[in-house]
Amino acid sequence: MSILVVGSVAFDDIATPSGRRQNVLGGAATYFALAASYFTDVRVVAVVGEDFSAEHEDVLKKRGVDTRGLQRSKGKTFRWGGQYLDNLNEAKTEFTELNVFEKFQPQIPDEYLNSPFLFLANIDPTLQAAVRLEMNGARLTGGDTMNYWIQSTPKELAETLKLVNILLINDAETKMLGGDRSLPRAARKVLALGPQALVVKHGEYGATIFFREGAFGIGSHPFRAPALPIEEVQDPTGAGDSFAGGFMGYLASQDELNREVLKRALFYGGVMGSFAVERFGTERLQTLTRNEIDARFQLFRELTHLG
Amino acid sequence: MSILVVGSVAFDDIATPSGRRQNVLGGAATYFALAASYFTDVRVVAVVGEDFSAEHEDVLKKRGVDTRGLQRSKGKTFRWGGQYLDNLNEAKTEFTELNVFEKFQPQIPDEYLNSPFLFLANIDPTLQAAVRLEMNGARLTGGDTMNYWIQSTPKELAETLKLVNILLINDAETKMLGGDRSLPRAARKVLALGPQALVVKHGEYGATIFFREGAFGIGSHPFRAPALPIEEVQDPTGAGDSFAGGFMGYLASQDELNREVLKRALFYGGVMGSFAVERFGTERLQTLTRNEIDARFQLFRELTHLG
Repeated sequence: MSILVVGSVAFDDIATPSGRRQNVLGGAATYFALAASYFTDVRVVAVVGEDFSAEHEDVLKKRGVDTRGLQRSKGKTFRWGGQYLDNLNEAKTEFTELNVFEKFQPQIPDEYLNSPFLFLANIDPTLQAAVRLEMNGARLTGGDTMNYWIQSTPKELAETLKLVNILLINDAETKMLGGDRSLPRAARKVLALGPQALVVKHGEYGATIFFREGAFGIGSHPFRAPALPIEEVQDPTGAGDSFAGGFMGYLASQDELNREVLKRALFYGGVMGSFAVERFGTERLQTLTRNEIDARFQLFRELTHLG
Repeated sequence: MSILVVGSVAFDDIATPSGRRQNVLGGAATYFALAASYFTDVRVVAVVGEDFSAEHEDVLKKRGVDTRGLQRSKGKTFRWGGQYLDNLNEAKTEFTELNVFEKFQPQIPDEYLNSPFLFLANIDPTLQAAVRLEMNGARLTGGDTMNYWIQSTPKELAETLKLVNILLINDAETKMLGGDRSLPRAARKVLALGPQALVVKHGEYGATIFFREGAFGIGSHPFRAPALPIEEVQDPTGAGDSFAGGFMGYLASQDELNREVLKRALFYGGVMGSFAVERFGTERLQTLTRNEIDARFQLFRELTHLG
């Protein structure tokens, strides 16, 4: 079934121990869409500027992503610069130019309104809520957020969280949002805010999914999918969004939502995140095959399962 | 089969978000011995001072640990003070009083010389090497070290590493010792220094074992055992030593050393580490049952394995 992602498209300047790149096509919606495209039909709503060319759009189109929801505005596309020279696990932002993203008002094309799956990438929670309410037939909604919204718009975020089925954030965001230094306790407090499930992304260590009691009829035991360390992380940008794309894309490809499907989705999330970081920007996500993806899935399984 | 551990016994002053404790019995050898005692016979060589009472020794004896190797010296036992108030994942040392530990010269009782398994806890690599050479009939030797020895006695450490079969250290120590920011590459460089296997401990995220090509006849694919987050970490002190005790203790209890046994050992390491942090000091490690341990092993397995 198809999935709609609403989020950012950006051009990034990136410096890592492996090198530097400028004007790399990025943004959460881009990484998410490419990762999810290996599992299901993807539709994207985002805003781009006049510097976004047909070749840029082709990166998405070549993966079959429906780009009719790309809104073109006067001005430049959102730009971000960051470096990971001291720490591959955390970006140091060097500049942020919101440009056309500053006035982003998501417009959902009519043809997208029937999308059974929805992913609200990391944007203003007020916009996330508006999109979710417009997409009121969505069967399952995933969402992301960040420390900025947790701290500056807590009330708006609380309203959005009531509309999200599965929230995907990292360890630090979970502890901040739950207001607790214990991850399991923080997770429980986040689940009390609305979501039925919370996926906590641990970077190179994989991810854990926590469930609200009774959610999806599958009990409340968490599940952890370990990733495996990558030989050469060239560029960590977009790893979390690629994880979300693999996770949500796999869910959207399945007829049923049960514990086993959610577990496999968590593994596929880790798989897509691990591919994303092997090259700068979305390079690796543009040319994968489903065979490569499933081979890495099997590898992750073999290298973490007892006999 | 029996295992001999050579390391420190200490009294710790500990402050964590859960509270403060003073004069808590600790030290790497203590945590290791208690954790390993649930799997096999344990012998301990360490130095203690006049403040080490019969009741302290009883903590080990009650778990069946052979304490004939405890050397009593004039003066006070090694003392360490640390706090985890800002970060449960990293101790901030407040004071270190080496006391009798400063002149520690491990004496192996004759009755211990036939121990088939040996663990060299984190002490001066020169002493580790001397013990290992004296225990020249040992079937398998595990070892630990830390940033201090990696930086200040690299040559001595290099000699010791040639004598160790399995090295157990954490992520940061692996990258420092291997001189590489990529964990898999750093691991390969560490393995080139001597050990056949390297266990990298990831704290709350579990551990990964890397193998030298052809080691133990089991190929060179790594294996990762994920731990699961603990509701309330009261005191992280000794988690790594308890992990080592569970890992080495389980290996010593098995007839054969194959890939499956090493994988299970990694899970048991995570299990013992997860118990250790639930209470201050060695409290939780003193009163476990093998049933509780195996129940948590099953829990870790269920919560990380696909169907």
